[in-house]
Amino acid sequence: MGKDDSEFMQEAIRLSVSNVTEGRGGPFGAVVVKDGKIIARGVNQVTTTNDPTAHAEVVAIRNACMVLNTFQLDGCEIYTSCEPCPMCLGAIYWARPAKLFYANSKEDATAIDFDDQFIYEELAKPVAERKLFTRQILREEALEAFTKWRESTVKISY
Amino acid sequence: MGKDDSEFMQEAIRLSVSNVTEGRGGPFGAVVVKDGKIIARGVNQVTTTNDPTAHAEVVAIRNACMVLNTFQLDGCEIYTSCEPCPMCLGAIYWARPAKLFYANSKEDATAIDFDDQFIYEELAKPVAERKLFTRQILREEALEAFTKWRESTVKISY
Repeated sequence: MGKDDSEFMQEAIRLSVSNVTEGRGGPFGAVVVKDGKIIARGVNQVTTTNDPTAHAEVVAIRNACMVLNTFQLDGCEIYTSCEPCPMCLGAIYWARPAKLFYANSKEDATAIDFDDQFIYEELAKPVAERKLFTRQILREEALEAFTKWRESTVKISY
Repeated sequence: MGKDDSEFMQEAIRLSVSNVTEGRGGPFGAVVVKDGKIIARGVNQVTTTNDPTAHAEVVAIRNACMVLNTFQLDGCEIYTSCEPCPMCLGAIYWARPAKLFYANSKEDATAIDFDDQFIYEELAKPVAERKLFTRQILREEALEAFTKWRESTVKISY
């Protein structure tokens, strides 16, 4: 762990603490770093913005992409005060940073009643065994969009 | 599959097709339904809005929560033109709708070069075995926010 890694994580932790003490949302903070500098921050804003996707990492990624004017975080590092939930870890993979650092574990999050571990377990199950009613319908019709995508000459892949 | 289910999915599919033909983004569309009516729509806007989290389901969930003025989709159904990626499935679990319907499978998405399957495989691996460099640091310091959350008397749980 380098001195810089420690400092960036301390900023993510500071954000997570102040988010609770200032009553803005869950105890989570994240920062995105590029070339040794913090370029974006995020805190959990689920209940204050009525957005269940507004976790610290998602907010930080969105902010970083705005700053960089791109949809990919090439060469960036993400420091988050807690191990990302499946939504946030998925978002991180789509954003494609170089490195990820986290502090609290998903077990720590479970211990204060967040669903992270439950959602990880659900994702690992076959669709039919999940607690969320899930059903596949109309696949044949839906393939049209994928065929059009494959044939498109103007698409921007990601 | 009820007649309504079919109609709602056809709207999600229509959105997925027009998103490609109009050059707005990837071949994905989603709708959120409550009490038999579509209350929100979403299409993939990753490359047009520089937001790697702007998948159809995430956009539809955010829109539905704005319409309902809440951070939970109680009693709602989500119809998405493709099996959700881990990010979107995580977002769906956090939003807590009653039911989920999808059309194309994640294998169909892989066949047109999207990372859905790869990300599912990564999430299932122990952290140390993932392709994304990931490291836990400063857990002890980070626990402060979780302790403060547990002790908070003003928090809004979700």
